[in-house]
Amino acid sequence: MTRPGPIPATMRAAVLYGAGDLRVVDRPVPEPRAEEVLVLVAMCGICGTDLKILDGRFPQTPPYGDYVPGHEWTGTVVATGSTVDELAPGDRVCIEAHHGCGRCASCLAGKYTACLNYGDPGKGHRASGMTVNGGFAQYALHHVGALYRLPDRVGADDAVLLTTAGTGLYGLETAGGYVAGQDVVVFGPGAVGLMTVQLCKRMGAARVILVGTRESRLRLGRDLGADHTVDATETDPVRAVLDLTGGQGADLVIEASGGLDAPDQCGRAVRRGGKILFLAFYPEAVRLDLSGVIRKDVTLYTARGEGGGNVRRGVALAAAGMLRCGELITHRFALEDIGEAFRVLRERAGEPLKVVVVP
Amino acid sequence: MTRPGPIPATMRAAVLYGAGDLRVVDRPVPEPRAEEVLVLVAMCGICGTDLKILDGRFPQTPPYGDYVPGHEWTGTVVATGSTVDELAPGDRVCIEAHHGCGRCASCLAGKYTACLNYGDPGKGHRASGMTVNGGFAQYALHHVGALYRLPDRVGADDAVLLTTAGTGLYGLETAGGYVAGQDVVVFGPGAVGLMTVQLCKRMGAARVILVGTRESRLRLGRDLGADHTVDATETDPVRAVLDLTGGQGADLVIEASGGLDAPDQCGRAVRRGGKILFLAFYPEAVRLDLSGVIRKDVTLYTARGEGGGNVRRGVALAAAGMLRCGELITHRFALEDIGEAFRVLRERAGEPLKVVVVP
Amino acid sequence: MTRPGPIPATMRAAVLYGAGDLRVVDRPVPEPRAEEVLVLVAMCGICGTDLKILDGRFPQTPPYGDYVPGHEWTGTVVATGSTVDELAPGDRVCIEAHHGCGRCASCLAGKYTACLNYGDPGKGHRASGMTVNGGFAQYALHHVGALYRLPDRVGADDAVLLTTAGTGLYGLETAGGYVAGQDVVVFGPGAVGLMTVQLCKRMGAARVILVGTRESRLRLGRDLGADHTVDATETDPVRAVLDLTGGQGADLVIEASGGLDAPDQCGRAVRRGGKILFLAFYPEAVRLDLSGVIRKDVTLYTARGEGGGNVRRGVALAAAGMLRCGELITHRFALEDIGEAFRVLRERAGEPLKVVVVP
Amino acid sequence: MTRPGPIPATMRAAVLYGAGDLRVVDRPVPEPRAEEVLVLVAMCGICGTDLKILDGRFPQTPPYGDYVPGHEWTGTVVATGSTVDELAPGDRVCIEAHHGCGRCASCLAGKYTACLNYGDPGKGHRASGMTVNGGFAQYALHHVGALYRLPDRVGADDAVLLTTAGTGLYGLETAGGYVAGQDVVVFGPGAVGLMTVQLCKRMGAARVILVGTRESRLRLGRDLGADHTVDATETDPVRAVLDLTGGQGADLVIEASGGLDAPDQCGRAVRRGGKILFLAFYPEAVRLDLSGVIRKDVTLYTARGEGGGNVRRGVALAAAGMLRCGELITHRFALEDIGEAFRVLRERAGEPLKVVVVP
Repeated sequence: MTRPGPIPATMRAAVLYGAGDLRVVDRPVPEPRAEEVLVLVAMCGICGTDLKILDGRFPQTPPYGDYVPGHEWTGTVVATGSTVDELAPGDRVCIEAHHGCGRCASCLAGKYTACLNYGDPGKGHRASGMTVNGGFAQYALHHVGALYRLPDRVGADDAVLLTTAGTGLYGLETAGGYVAGQDVVVFGPGAVGLMTVQLCKRMGAARVILVGTRESRLRLGRDLGADHTVDATETDPVRAVLDLTGGQGADLVIEASGGLDAPDQCGRAVRRGGKILFLAFYPEAVRLDLSGVIRKDVTLYTARGEGGGNVRRGVALAAAGMLRCGELITHRFALEDIGEAFRVLRERAGEPLKVVVVP
Repeated sequence: MTRPGPIPATMRAAVLYGAGDLRVVDRPVPEPRAEEVLVLVAMCGICGTDLKILDGRFPQTPPYGDYVPGHEWTGTVVATGSTVDELAPGDRVCIEAHHGCGRCASCLAGKYTACLNYGDPGKGHRASGMTVNGGFAQYALHHVGALYRLPDRVGADDAVLLTTAGTGLYGLETAGGYVAGQDVVVFGPGAVGLMTVQLCKRMGAARVILVGTRESRLRLGRDLGADHTVDATETDPVRAVLDLTGGQGADLVIEASGGLDAPDQCGRAVRRGGKILFLAFYPEAVRLDLSGVIRKDVTLYTARGEGGGNVRRGVALAAAGMLRCGELITHRFALEDIGEAFRVLRERAGEPLKVVVVP
Repeated sequence: MTRPGPIPATMRAAVLYGAGDLRVVDRPVPEPRAEEVLVLVAMCGICGTDLKILDGRFPQTPPYGDYVPGHEWTGTVVATGSTVDELAPGDRVCIEAHHGCGRCASCLAGKYTACLNYGDPGKGHRASGMTVNGGFAQYALHHVGALYRLPDRVGADDAVLLTTAGTGLYGLETAGGYVAGQDVVVFGPGAVGLMTVQLCKRMGAARVILVGTRESRLRLGRDLGADHTVDATETDPVRAVLDLTGGQGADLVIEASGGLDAPDQCGRAVRRGGKILFLAFYPEAVRLDLSGVIRKDVTLYTARGEGGGNVRRGVALAAAGMLRCGELITHRFALEDIGEAFRVLRERAGEPLKVVVVP
Repeated sequence: MTRPGPIPATMRAAVLYGAGDLRVVDRPVPEPRAEEVLVLVAMCGICGTDLKILDGRFPQTPPYGDYVPGHEWTGTVVATGSTVDELAPGDRVCIEAHHGCGRCASCLAGKYTACLNYGDPGKGHRASGMTVNGGFAQYALHHVGALYRLPDRVGADDAVLLTTAGTGLYGLETAGGYVAGQDVVVFGPGAVGLMTVQLCKRMGAARVILVGTRESRLRLGRDLGADHTVDATETDPVRAVLDLTGGQGADLVIEASGGLDAPDQCGRAVRRGGKILFLAFYPEAVRLDLSGVIRKDVTLYTARGEGGGNVRRGVALAAAGMLRCGELITHRFALEDIGEAFRVLRERAGEPLKVVVVP
């Protein structure tokens, strides 16, 4: 633990002033309330949702001119609220984006990503960088319950991906959590998909079959543990899965691609009595042979983010050397160059996988 | 227990000779093998799946000319196989259609409606009236594990609906089984829907909202326990559910209508963190705002029939006077008039709800 | 909703000054903080845990001289904290005793009765009347997330038992929640046991067998829905359960008696593959044939109180007229007579079932 | 696949003639019925249950003079029943001991180790080597549903331990199956305990703490993946677990030692809201602070053997190189020397861990 320096009065922060209008400006450094922690941000990832936010297509955000996005961040604690003793200045942390209100029926049942007061900070809900200010800034506040202390061996490059790992873990928990000895298919070798491939292998999946469209991604997937990869531009992925599983289909099919055809392919690639897990979002309504899924007695699970305290499990796995995270980072930008970071991600310039901003 | 008379050598049975060609003919009375039971059929219901069967649109059936459909039947035991002591001649029974192979991964895990040897009688799988001969006949065979003894107070009129109740119960078990004090929506006041309305009330649902399109059915639904009914031809059912639930949506939404718009309506009528249960089949692929469902952290459960031994629970509920079954029967036909029975169901002549054949 | 009168500066409250030293004194009426609600107490029940508290055998309580016990209370809202819009003055409410910290691993997973900050009010945990001040007073504070609005048809007599119902419901949820059509045994016809008998019936249990030692309680149990009762002073309860279940044992056995022999009897009365649920506490370590339980593949569930937001379900059941609560109240005392109330409960004078204090 | 030679008419088999009277004699080689498979036994392990069987303290066995024990075996298929196409002569297989009747309420729900017809072979239940003849013989029969084909890379030394792995896996499934990133304690470094240590690590447990009494076993445990070991003869295991977990206790505590003190230690070593899993049997009733467990909201899971088809998962893990099995074998004996094998195990001569018989 190294003591960080004195906290300045102002900081640089990327503030959204309107759709497409993100400016890096000076802002006061916020002060932590009783249950909050102030963190010096080391790094903040950009994901597809940030593109929607930048374009003004995300609901329940803070008002333009006051809104700092960024929901995948990590850093070092510099100040803590009056009730906090779980963390102290100098501790390095990573985050869950979501902290529930703690008082609605969903939160009481532990489903805080489904908080019934979603987007109501007055009642205690917050989704960092989405419904309250986040991590595209030098300093960021968060609720102590959404921060996880990092051991020394987990550096910032790894930690910035643990929010993503949390989504995969929460999804796997929702879907039963028990993949040991099973066959799992993952559609979509993006950051969520590639973290989920690793998680399935670490949880004992016998075989993980990764479906994608770019050989570079599939190669990385194999390197991270995928037993088989299928290039969907060359091979029908359903056919490939059935061939690999003796015609029966996979025990669990995970959809992390967001492709419009993928949900129906999941339904055809899963075995009778199997499971489908959705970790992606779709640009429009999807068409699905629902009868086919019902005839197979298949359950469809979903996860909208990293719930259930699963980032804690991700930290433990990383601390045990069981996850490879940092190597998913392909591009780094200074905060002042955040506009360029967004351009690279949107235009897929230089095959970005995880693009991060270093304030 | 009244001892039935001697078993004749032949019986009358409705045999499917081809698509649309169902004939009532003489057939030998079958003999029970070691684990089988021979039942004198008292009554056999017709459901929507039977229309598909009659039209030749159902897979894995026995060959034309040898195939007796009918999967919702009840009757009296007349003979038992060599290993059977659970039942004796004179016992009255109702059935589960499905009996699994008992040797595949699905059956070992108790998911026999998802048997991996579905449609393979040689390996022990059977779905009475679907993949092996069923109950549109004077006598029918079944595996002892798919038969449930009826107490005196449960008559044949009630018993013939218990297979249907088993579908609702299995679906509810799959979806967690704990609806006490919750708000449940049921789309579709057919036989499955109306049995499920009752089951939800018997399991302590605080409010059941039934959505349909015919006032006669909705009236029956109210009579059977629905707290609110919505005529979807007059009122947007999603709007109605949101109004009744303070804008939050229902805890559990059950789709039993088979309407193409219904799955998407379920997604909009369910609350964040809630559940959807599908008990119907659809004539084609459905369109669904899957992102909306994922954003709500909703799980989608399915049941293709009465699994998990749930008919046993249905019998217990009927024995305790907690289910009203027989009053769903609107039409009765002699076996010789089975063609007319099918016509009535297909043309909805006289508002049929449950049409039964009495051999 | 009737507007209550002005809030006085002081109130009468029963304050614990030491083991056995409970005095009714004047105290300032507390003020609600941002997430709190001030309630004019209509009634507060006494339970066995209160005897332990009075005797100084309960851990993590507030210091003597400052501590107001009472954890089963109901009343009318008179003031709300700054963030509260779920409730307004005039609303009638009942409570969960427990509100978790909302920031530990247990609370994030929805298991707030197992809060890792149990007894630490600084971090947000509270158990009303146990670790913070409760309801043996004219006014009481609670967290908004632990209060449930009552509809008009649920009076105070009923509401005061809904905390108890919540314990039964949480236990049943923990144990799977799906008792429809099953055989359930309940050991112990105290308040928890009798509420649980009703809950099991309302959730569709085919038969509930109640085991006790006093005919008056068993009679009440039958009146509340128990299908069979066993007087354990006359009949071996294990034998009785086996006789009633064809020698197989019950699907679910619930222990709510706290008797030292009862856990082992549960193990012998449950069927292979069945479940045991513990809702009681024991004066010392118990002896148990654990091998017998393991050989039966039985799972043992526990619940220490009303978690998972289950009081909400209890309110809904009461609102639907599905629970009988108030008739469990056998004795009422004014707050000034709380000493006598404790004496009656401790000495079982006049067969007390639920003793309540009316401030 | 190598074609085995012709099947002889007789074989050598260890037959139990009475308590303590096990003789190796000639017996006819049995013939497979429709759903059975005849296997040339390569190896059969001995476990603690076999000592009870030899001593005549095991219920529901075949009659003396006709009974061949042995329930952990592996070998090569030599003949198959008329309905079997899942396996063919030459296939190498390992086993689950249990095959359920497939017709009782437990089996229909997938809980066949809790078969209600346990010990009734006429109805189809069998526990190989326990309720029907097993593997201490040159040839053994089993139900096709309890046999799992081995890939080439899994040799007999590994396969003979997969039945044991199945017990650990079934227990872990029963207890939720999701240990990724968690702290797990295993009491008892016997064969079940050491396989379970490995399984927990392969399923992503962050830390596994192994408690035992012999340094040689603990050393092996560390070698197989245990992160910490505690010698209970030197250190209080509860204290050690609390120290390693910051005073909170472990997420999951697995009891595989059968020691009388262990269950209570599990209750004190588990964290609030955690889980205990019992995989052992006890020589007599145990004493347990049940109230302490209840106050922590802990659930107690049990598994009496390898259910739920979990041996299939074990085979897949072994095939993927994720399990080390064969090195647990410390002693090998020819079938003719089976008496000596039992002596070594009983007297713990030469620190036996897994003793196997090679027919």
